[in-house]
Amino acid sequence: MAGEAYKFDALGAIAAIKARRIAVSDYAGALISHIEANEPAIQAWQHFEPEQVRAQAAALDACADLSRLPLAGVAVGVKDIIDTAGMPTENGTVLDAGRGPQTDAAVVRALREAGAVIMGKTVTTELAFMHPARTRNPRNLEHSPGGSSSGSAAAVAAGMVPIALGTQTAGSVIRPAAFCGVYGLKPTHGLFSREGVLEEAGSLDVVGVFARTLGDAAAVGQVLAKGAGSASGDYLAATRESAFPARFAFVRTPSWPLAEEDTKAAFESFAKALGPICETLDLPASFDRAIGFHRTVMFSEMALNYTGYYERGKDQLSTELREAIEAGRQMLAVDYAQALRERESLYQQLLGTLEPYDAIITPSAPGPAPKGFKTTGNPVFCSMWTYLGVPALNLPLLEVNGLPLGVQLVGRRSGEERLFKAAAALLQAATARCI
Amino acid sequence: MAGEAYKFDALGAIAAIKARRIAVSDYAGALISHIEANEPAIQAWQHFEPEQVRAQAAALDACADLSRLPLAGVAVGVKDIIDTAGMPTENGTVLDAGRGPQTDAAVVRALREAGAVIMGKTVTTELAFMHPARTRNPRNLEHSPGGSSSGSAAAVAAGMVPIALGTQTAGSVIRPAAFCGVYGLKPTHGLFSREGVLEEAGSLDVVGVFARTLGDAAAVGQVLAKGAGSASGDYLAATRESAFPARFAFVRTPSWPLAEEDTKAAFESFAKALGPICETLDLPASFDRAIGFHRTVMFSEMALNYTGYYERGKDQLSTELREAIEAGRQMLAVDYAQALRERESLYQQLLGTLEPYDAIITPSAPGPAPKGFKTTGNPVFCSMWTYLGVPALNLPLLEVNGLPLGVQLVGRRSGEERLFKAAAALLQAATARCI
Repeated sequence: MAGEAYKFDALGAIAAIKARRIAVSDYAGALISHIEANEPAIQAWQHFEPEQVRAQAAALDACADLSRLPLAGVAVGVKDIIDTAGMPTENGTVLDAGRGPQTDAAVVRALREAGAVIMGKTVTTELAFMHPARTRNPRNLEHSPGGSSSGSAAAVAAGMVPIALGTQTAGSVIRPAAFCGVYGLKPTHGLFSREGVLEEAGSLDVVGVFARTLGDAAAVGQVLAKGAGSASGDYLAATRESAFPARFAFVRTPSWPLAEEDTKAAFESFAKALGPICETLDLPASFDRAIGFHRTVMFSEMALNYTGYYERGKDQLSTELREAIEAGRQMLAVDYAQALRERESLYQQLLGTLEPYDAIITPSAPGPAPKGFKTTGNPVFCSMWTYLGVPALNLPLLEVNGLPLGVQLVGRRSGEERLFKAAAALLQAATARCI
Repeated sequence: MAGEAYKFDALGAIAAIKARRIAVSDYAGALISHIEANEPAIQAWQHFEPEQVRAQAAALDACADLSRLPLAGVAVGVKDIIDTAGMPTENGTVLDAGRGPQTDAAVVRALREAGAVIMGKTVTTELAFMHPARTRNPRNLEHSPGGSSSGSAAAVAAGMVPIALGTQTAGSVIRPAAFCGVYGLKPTHGLFSREGVLEEAGSLDVVGVFARTLGDAAAVGQVLAKGAGSASGDYLAATRESAFPARFAFVRTPSWPLAEEDTKAAFESFAKALGPICETLDLPASFDRAIGFHRTVMFSEMALNYTGYYERGKDQLSTELREAIEAGRQMLAVDYAQALRERESLYQQLLGTLEPYDAIITPSAPGPAPKGFKTTGNPVFCSMWTYLGVPALNLPLLEVNGLPLGVQLVGRRSGEERLFKAAAALLQAATARCI
């Protein structure tokens, strides 16, 4: 029975642990065995030391009172660009081989204080950019898991942990969540702390959450928002609000022509099946430039932030990253300043356009996980929302050709509570309509 | 008697008007006569129509109750880059000749709602940059009044209005206030609204206040902070707190070698005369780069914001401005992004360094107003504080060679109340020590 405990979702594990129906050590032991059995095929972990996990579990079991810990005993994987005391953080580059930070990132601290067990560090692409890492997609080992939070998405999809942290600067949470068929939360820019996280592009970077249920994502998101002192609402309660009369806007976005034909068809029919709660909406033409603005901001800031890596060892960087840094170094201040300025004006337009709706429905990616490992897939369906700083969820609701196809739900800045309500309503509607 | 009413400071005028000891129309009439007599020599006004002033004054006189208006009847000059409904706003360039905005800038709206009379538009340098305008310095007509808020400083110094609004992106409030021997308030970046104000460099631009007394500057600053919904405290009460035990840091700044010898001597002896309430403090070497960062931010953003002017009529721009825009267009995004990022880190360092002090004492300019009209003077003693977003006051406390020499008092972001307290304490200490 304890051997099957790896199948718990986070809320299930927390409930069982708080009720002392299972010891944290037994729960962790089941996950350790499951990881050991599956890691050779999946390769989700950059750092995984069972003894470190067992020590944390034993400490929790020794606690007289686990009931006040919102994440009591739950196991979490942490992307290897997020600092962890006692475990290396190597940022996916040989230039940081053996790097061992002395302190936890603020998000890791918040998880530990909430009672979570840090399972280990998950594989990231090189410096959280586009060059593929070694991780495989648990849904089909011949396909990419997406990136840059490749290991986090795969570990959650493979049942190695119920929760993992990732980060997103373009589409690094929503896209791998979609490719691996799990839930992904990319919060409002600035909502969760980024202290102790590799800075790729500060105007865009966010820490995000992977989970196998909407409630799990909400419960962990709540802890991270609270840890950052961000005003928030009750995300978990929001997922349980059964009669929320949600209204959705199906938005194709300017990137629609890049979507695969099967994906387009699946979304058109999904939107249609939702009936009157979902209307098709076109964004004003001004949004056509958002992807370009995102690139300007990302490449400019990345070129600045990665100057040290470039100067220290540009020959040890991938061609993709080296060329991106070189492109960023050429970018002009006027273009960067314009991209930052237009962001606020576009967001104001978005607020106006969205007024009658609770959330946007749009693809998480141009299609399912690409076959092979030459690319982690195209983040183009995420970049605009990352640029605008709005929260997004990946909901693993659709499938094409036996692979998961993610539905992306997008909300307003700091509107996580409403977004979770809308997501719960969408799941309910999809179930009721047998979509 | 009413003819002498132009001599009122703002608080004096407000008190007399509220008590109905003088009609707004008589007060305004005295100022109109004083302007008409002195404008040919000073040339402070870009737009001045006595009939528009008389109409506003008559409307106020017709009010049953002036007592609730904090600035009842007080006359204000408005820099000609700040929009005014019913009066042109030409931004100091022929490219905007005849431009007539339909709505007031938010700061003008706040002043009108507080009962102020808008006297007219004061001369600005071309697009608030460095090319000198025609205005003379009332303290010595052969000297520059400073810029870019040239007309506002001169109008207040000449007694044409007790209050004027200016703006500062490098040193355009503090420097002309210093050169003309009046008080100047440059608030915390973002504290007063910039809606309806020409955007030169949004990361730096602030609206500021010129006045002939500290209390006047505080009273108007309060109205503008309140108008913007900014949390603030009571500035005017702060100037009346007689027993505030202020401690000052005399900071030479990295620009000290650019100060004139007389100015250096005057400041050294001023700091010494203050005795134990003032300590000499050197900023860490990291501040040496602040002036360069300021320039990068200013030129980059100005190049973006003035693209339209440049493309429409670069031949009608001054050489100074054209070259600055061209320099800004060449600047790199990585340098601009770095300048923005370092700002926060330098400000954190400043907070640490300043911990034992209420305010910094530093020169407002390298010396008194320069002779002739080839330059508006060097803003270098203001740029660092503008870059850091902190509030500053010019106090017209010193003199060299018969010309005013401004003492700049610098505080913490959103620390206007404490800054006004410190300024009042400094005035008191200077009086007590016969400085």
